Amino acid sequence: MSQTFDLVIRNARCATAADTFESDIGIRNGVIEALGKSLPAGKEEIDAAGAWVTPGGVDGHCHFDQPTNDGTEMADDFLSGTRSAVCGGTTTVIPFALQQRGQSLKDAVADYHRRAGQKACIDYSFHMIISDPTEEVLSNELPELISKGYTSFKIYMTYDDLKLSDREFIDVLAVARNEGAMVMVHAENADCIAWMTERLLKAGHTAPKYHAESRPMLVEREATHRAISFAELVDVPILIVHVSGREAVEQIQWAQSKGLRIYGETCPQYLFLSAEDLGGDDDYEGTKCICSPPPRDKGNQQVIWNALESGTFDVFSSDHAPFRFADPKGKQAEGDQPSFDKVANGIPGVETRMPLLFSHGVLTGRISIQQFVSLTSTSVAKMYGMYPRKGSIAVGADADLVIWDTDTHRVIRNDDLHHNVDYTPYEGIHLNAWPAITLSRGRSLWKDGQYLGHEGMGEFLPCERPEPARPKVTHSPFIRESN
Amino acid sequence: MSQTFDLVIRNARCATAADTFESDIGIRNGVIEALGKSLPAGKEEIDAAGAWVTPGGVDGHCHFDQPTNDGTEMADDFLSGTRSAVCGGTTTVIPFALQQRGQSLKDAVADYHRRAGQKACIDYSFHMIISDPTEEVLSNELPELISKGYTSFKIYMTYDDLKLSDREFIDVLAVARNEGAMVMVHAENADCIAWMTERLLKAGHTAPKYHAESRPMLVEREATHRAISFAELVDVPILIVHVSGREAVEQIQWAQSKGLRIYGETCPQYLFLSAEDLGGDDDYEGTKCICSPPPRDKGNQQVIWNALESGTFDVFSSDHAPFRFADPKGKQAEGDQPSFDKVANGIPGVETRMPLLFSHGVLTGRISIQQFVSLTSTSVAKMYGMYPRKGSIAVGADADLVIWDTDTHRVIRNDDLHHNVDYTPYEGIHLNAWPAITLSRGRSLWKDGQYLGHEGMGEFLPCERPEPARPKVTHSPFIRESN
Amino acid sequence: MSQTFDLVIRNARCATAADTFESDIGIRNGVIEALGKSLPAGKEEIDAAGAWVTPGGVDGHCHFDQPTNDGTEMADDFLSGTRSAVCGGTTTVIPFALQQRGQSLKDAVADYHRRAGQKACIDYSFHMIISDPTEEVLSNELPELISKGYTSFKIYMTYDDLKLSDREFIDVLAVARNEGAMVMVHAENADCIAWMTERLLKAGHTAPKYHAESRPMLVEREATHRAISFAELVDVPILIVHVSGREAVEQIQWAQSKGLRIYGETCPQYLFLSAEDLGGDDDYEGTKCICSPPPRDKGNQQVIWNALESGTFDVFSSDHAPFRFADPKGKQAEGDQPSFDKVANGIPGVETRMPLLFSHGVLTGRISIQQFVSLTSTSVAKMYGMYPRKGSIAVGADADLVIWDTDTHRVIRNDDLHHNVDYTPYEGIHLNAWPAITLSRGRSLWKDGQYLGHEGMGEFLPCERPEPARPKVTHSPFIRESN
Amino acid sequence: MSQTFDLVIRNARCATAADTFESDIGIRNGVIEALGKSLPAGKEEIDAAGAWVTPGGVDGHCHFDQPTNDGTEMADDFLSGTRSAVCGGTTTVIPFALQQRGQSLKDAVADYHRRAGQKACIDYSFHMIISDPTEEVLSNELPELISKGYTSFKIYMTYDDLKLSDREFIDVLAVARNEGAMVMVHAENADCIAWMTERLLKAGHTAPKYHAESRPMLVEREATHRAISFAELVDVPILIVHVSGREAVEQIQWAQSKGLRIYGETCPQYLFLSAEDLGGDDDYEGTKCICSPPPRDKGNQQVIWNALESGTFDVFSSDHAPFRFADPKGKQAEGDQPSFDKVANGIPGVETRMPLLFSHGVLTGRISIQQFVSLTSTSVAKMYGMYPRKGSIAVGADADLVIWDTDTHRVIRNDDLHHNVDYTPYEGIHLNAWPAITLSRGRSLWKDGQYLGHEGMGEFLPCERPEPARPKVTHSPFIRESN
Repeated sequence: MSQTFDLVIRNARCATAADTFESDIGIRNGVIEALGKSLPAGKEEIDAAGAWVTPGGVDGHCHFDQPTNDGTEMADDFLSGTRSAVCGGTTTVIPFALQQRGQSLKDAVADYHRRAGQKACIDYSFHMIISDPTEEVLSNELPELISKGYTSFKIYMTYDDLKLSDREFIDVLAVARNEGAMVMVHAENADCIAWMTERLLKAGHTAPKYHAESRPMLVEREATHRAISFAELVDVPILIVHVSGREAVEQIQWAQSKGLRIYGETCPQYLFLSAEDLGGDDDYEGTKCICSPPPRDKGNQQVIWNALESGTFDVFSSDHAPFRFADPKGKQAEGDQPSFDKVANGIPGVETRMPLLFSHGVLTGRISIQQFVSLTSTSVAKMYGMYPRKGSIAVGADADLVIWDTDTHRVIRNDDLHHNVDYTPYEGIHLNAWPAITLSRGRSLWKDGQYLGHEGMGEFLPCERPEPARPKVTHSPFIRESN
Repeated sequence: MSQTFDLVIRNARCATAADTFESDIGIRNGVIEALGKSLPAGKEEIDAAGAWVTPGGVDGHCHFDQPTNDGTEMADDFLSGTRSAVCGGTTTVIPFALQQRGQSLKDAVADYHRRAGQKACIDYSFHMIISDPTEEVLSNELPELISKGYTSFKIYMTYDDLKLSDREFIDVLAVARNEGAMVMVHAENADCIAWMTERLLKAGHTAPKYHAESRPMLVEREATHRAISFAELVDVPILIVHVSGREAVEQIQWAQSKGLRIYGETCPQYLFLSAEDLGGDDDYEGTKCICSPPPRDKGNQQVIWNALESGTFDVFSSDHAPFRFADPKGKQAEGDQPSFDKVANGIPGVETRMPLLFSHGVLTGRISIQQFVSLTSTSVAKMYGMYPRKGSIAVGADADLVIWDTDTHRVIRNDDLHHNVDYTPYEGIHLNAWPAITLSRGRSLWKDGQYLGHEGMGEFLPCERPEPARPKVTHSPFIRESN
Repeated sequence: MSQTFDLVIRNARCATAADTFESDIGIRNGVIEALGKSLPAGKEEIDAAGAWVTPGGVDGHCHFDQPTNDGTEMADDFLSGTRSAVCGGTTTVIPFALQQRGQSLKDAVADYHRRAGQKACIDYSFHMIISDPTEEVLSNELPELISKGYTSFKIYMTYDDLKLSDREFIDVLAVARNEGAMVMVHAENADCIAWMTERLLKAGHTAPKYHAESRPMLVEREATHRAISFAELVDVPILIVHVSGREAVEQIQWAQSKGLRIYGETCPQYLFLSAEDLGGDDDYEGTKCICSPPPRDKGNQQVIWNALESGTFDVFSSDHAPFRFADPKGKQAEGDQPSFDKVANGIPGVETRMPLLFSHGVLTGRISIQQFVSLTSTSVAKMYGMYPRKGSIAVGADADLVIWDTDTHRVIRNDDLHHNVDYTPYEGIHLNAWPAITLSRGRSLWKDGQYLGHEGMGEFLPCERPEPARPKVTHSPFIRESN
Repeated sequence: MSQTFDLVIRNARCATAADTFESDIGIRNGVIEALGKSLPAGKEEIDAAGAWVTPGGVDGHCHFDQPTNDGTEMADDFLSGTRSAVCGGTTTVIPFALQQRGQSLKDAVADYHRRAGQKACIDYSFHMIISDPTEEVLSNELPELISKGYTSFKIYMTYDDLKLSDREFIDVLAVARNEGAMVMVHAENADCIAWMTERLLKAGHTAPKYHAESRPMLVEREATHRAISFAELVDVPILIVHVSGREAVEQIQWAQSKGLRIYGETCPQYLFLSAEDLGGDDDYEGTKCICSPPPRDKGNQQVIWNALESGTFDVFSSDHAPFRFADPKGKQAEGDQPSFDKVANGIPGVETRMPLLFSHGVLTGRISIQQFVSLTSTSVAKMYGMYPRKGSIAVGADADLVIWDTDTHRVIRNDDLHHNVDYTPYEGIHLNAWPAITLSRGRSLWKDGQYLGHEGMGEFLPCERPEPARPKVTHSPFIRESN
């Protein structure tokens, strides 16, 4: 502490995933160097005046500038995507480098670096999406990429161009176990969906509401059970992403109570949207809310809140998937009254994620502020090997911080958001919390209602082996290779 | 009753699936025509002298003379198979007409009729095994065959040459729902087994005991959950066959408690054998007990007993699969110390099924005699559309009856059995019950320790739509086709 | 069969708890002597003409002429009660001989014999209600009464003048185990109800609807769990009576899946009434539906139907508790707008029990006719040691039979019923089934819409040890007394 | 930071309940004033040299100098008890102020202050044990004491002189809800235990092993279910203490998954002892391990580990209950071969609690160090309203710290411990972790294997309303009093 701080934040009411404390925060070179009462003066000073200060959000599930094969185009690239994120309190994002079938994983990663490199205004890393786990991918590319800091990947159990067979799924899990990576699973049974969709279309049911009917919750429950079984077989942790309601929650709780390392993620859409938002029989406005799994009924919203409160979920992500509504490259790629099965799946939400949960979770008393920090930042950083650099207010951590304004009364309006999408599914929801200032490595990128960042400020963050992936001491069915 | 009975059984202590009563049984033309005290004299009379008389057994799961592709050969054809059955109290069998990939279902059925026709000494019907559900099969052959009395079929979720994809599984279920047929499911996850097997072999583990390790119970649990989910989607009853232990039982109980029509079958091997019977590391005697799912540990035997007692299971079958042990067309097709994955799956048991359960279930007080009748006969007949012709002691039913000797003390010896297999996995088990007389349509085929039948006495029995398949009154996710 | 039958019923479509068959029924001396095609002529003949014929109902839970302490009076004595029963197809009733605190059990039984003896028109037995299990009761009276044919008793976990302490409950169970009796349990937690009631009254909430709020389902669930635990400790079967909804059902299913002999009973009120029938805030008509546990919501009705279908319940009873509505000795003992806690608990239903279940269960396809017979007659007779004399259509059984009219279209009207109560809670419900003829030991007591019985025709039926009470073969925590 | 620190700990590898970070720790006036790299020099300095530094333990469940009624005497008073605690890394204890029946709560608290005041060497607070919840206690004493900092109390469901009736239990919960206090529950069914004990004694079974047989797990499960039900009724959080195995764990998990605020505590005895430690039929050494609930079998140890790992438990306590073994005022108050029901319940463990869990939990990889901190300190401090003064390494918190030696290889020997008990049940267990230094408010009380404290250094700590007791936003069955 012989040198002067670059920045001191005074009178912060700090919250971590476990603690709350009042302290000044001393920052130098973008890193938290000291916490304490009456720290020496910094070159710059911000008076938090007793406001809550939390770690910047880590959004572990968002899609930016991801190539598609169906004529659609994501509205957000790394610039608009990260800009939107930081204005809503998120300081790290982990979008997906998607492997196309036939493509090498390394090429997919290289391509994605090109997309991100000069644009991101906040730090980022990549999950890989494995759609073609060839012998080369399993034996060479994955181990090498994991060792270089790409330590998480996603598996799809649905979508024709992405889904893995059961055997491919197991093989990928085995690599994750051997190399210490974290596997995210999109759990829906493809064949059930296809069968239901055919029957619905045959019956002439094409409105957005039939999207939900084409994937009833048992479709998600079955795939969740299957994914858990494979993880149990291979003895490796996995994360079930975007859990939507009771039946999937019960599978995860059952697995956790057996002692399996099954983690769960949920998203704002399962707390704030319901099947009603998909509209009625002739209502195509509902395409705005088409995402998978679909929002369920109100009873299931409560189940998701309960599971957040009781600790079933570790991660709260946006699953930001930016397709414009009134746009021939967006939701209306097939025309303005598209059949539900022709609509690009996904909704935007990277900017509203943290304010929604702070306002409706913390300020209502449903969850503690420590749970909020854990769900939006700390546990995510740990899950994906970014901790302790990201995810906390602690000595040595990056100074990615949010100073919250909790005296605000505002209403979500798409006009106020910073993404490139022409709508938000959360339009009209009241909020009592929004970031007053968001700092990325000590620099204020969002302040006084202004975005102050610029493209390319963000850095790629190679990840460590995730903490929860550490093999557990059990009598495992996994037979170690003889060496 | 103006005419004389062909046969009167006097002083029978009759048991049905619900009742016990003391009565004479008057039989004419192979059918029970009257029950009563002091019935008029018959041309022939048997004095049961207060012994238990039960309906003859219906074995709803046995394999005779089934074509194989791997150089093995089933030891029992319809002659030795039905002979063995009747000596153990079973008077109806339902083996499998197996469709080979590329084969028409009708041809498979026709071929199987040829195998059975001149040989069976007791009545029989066929389940079809659907291995290739082409459009022709689904749209034409299956509906036609169902209407002709082939109202049940089996689906495999494992075995490379038999297993269906999820979509095929669902499509077959949809036909079953539309046509009112019963679907039996062999529930094990093929890919999990393949992956485990590869690892075991790579590690040099080839002894029979590794058969059990290659298919841990989660493999069965996962497939059971998946099958239940598909049945729930399509809203159709199914029967999970040969359930082996706790994890699968819990899935079935969970489904039943939700109000789904999920039925369960178990077999003697899960009550009387355990993984220990597969032997140690260098012990190939254990190949005698290789069947799938494998016998589990002793704790799981108790779970299966509990589930029998509490009504989780409806059907108790042998899954008789006759491969000789010391035989190059049997268990040793790959030599005398075959790798576990090269051993023909299955064990014999059609003759011992009923005595084992009577002796260790009824006489020990674990289950009531009515439960015994239900599990071995009545519920099976109902499940497969043979009721009320088969499965009860009631006016109008076929006079398929067993008069039990429950004063016996005997030990199971393969030398005493009537199949063509050179071993029984139950060798040495003590019994206190064995049929004194087995009657098939009023004719004594087993009496005084002698087989009195001859080939061709049995008739093919076209089946009705099964009773449990009757669609339930629910708000179903099933969308009826517009006509 | 050398003698002539007193009565032959021709062309009956008979149903038992397991079977259906077409047969004539030959009856002599009130007993079924023969079943068969073309039975010889009887002195009297009835042509059933293919109608369903079932065993007469056994109502294992009804209250007639039971002494009360609070100024109320039951409207039905054994005459009107049994008359009402037989007109609705029930041929055996088992009301309760209630022990008052301080009273000897024998005296209670003797008193109840006096009430029943000259009045009952159908056969009957008694359950004892144990409210004061003194050392004398436990050691002498109960064993002696059990040996004399009083083999079942009921325990209350609520109601101040009836409830037993946990220790008393366990002590009574121990006697039941030693002597082989069946224990029925009214499972609600008294202290929870008292606490909720106090709070409701303090808040000025006195309308009938608050009766349901004073005993939320957790009150029933807790007591059910506790009762199961005591039965597990003592290793004895018990029957949880009048189960009302999901939370109690789940406890019973959980116990059954563990292999415990826990049985369940439900009643028409949990299928056909809901909390809505208790009315609104100023609606005292709802006192007509006050019973305990209270009817729950519609979702719970479906849960009860599911549990009936899947076999969770063994017994379907009326819990007939006859209090007149507009009567100072009935529901309005405390005036015409009585506070919910001052209203006599219970509703009438002995006559409508079987038609309601036949019509809305069997004819809708929810349950099979065999399940109907089991739930209303066979399993009840077995549970309480009346089988095989009662509960079946079998050689040697009493000729207690119902010939059903299933072509009827009628609406339940209290004016048409034969009890002494001035209302029925089921007023207005449509029915498609009602007994055409009810026979008690071969005599038609209900025929052509006329009651043909007379008082005193019924006989007391000493009971055997119940079948389900047979100790199971387990490693029990029960330590046998050293002798 | 203008003034000099009293103490600076250099190079600490700090762990909190969420974070790990490397930092110096600057302490002044017993409080952590700064965390940072290269803090200015302190008057005193300790070089942690990269060792783990955790918050000092908070033992939320220990008994010191508690009056008894049966001739026994606790071996540890506040001096020896707190001395033993601090040598094992615990810096705050919360023993019990026990209300005797007929005694006022205030008197009980005053008496306990007298016992603690001049003796404790570390900070402490009290839980109250409510054994006599009179109207005066409920309406006046409890609210007043809660407002003065006694914000938690314990309820017994067993032990004749302590147990509450169901109604008393509910009434106490209602006060806890109104006033915001935390209720701890000892969940075992008293009547079940009494009944089993009588039977065991009658059969001549008196050895310590029968202590476990007298309280099978269902006894704990039933009481746990009942306690959960009462908490659900009143809508208040509770903590189930000393959970011993699967059946109770399942109840807690079920409640948590329903969204109820049910917390769980477990203790070292359920991880490290089993029923085998109670010895054989003539082995009275086992009295050393008599505690309630009793240790279960090895399978249940694994269940408790799983539940620790997966987050079912929030609190890990010692339940230190110090009775000497070879002592007429201890375990042998009834002689040297006492009947199991005459042995004082409880075992010592305040000193070994943290090293056991660090060594066998953290160092084996079963739990993370953050979980360790949470279970032994942070969550306990929050549960009982001591946070943020106790329970963390954060600016503003008391400098209660443990610097761990994790290079040690030692074996637990009672001779090395600092309590007054003549045995430890953990004798002989290997450890790889023990505190190198324990600091209480910045003062080293344990260092270099020496106890450096002295009596009276500890202070009484009035507690805040517990954090988890904050009422949740639900539609509660709790009817608010009209005001």
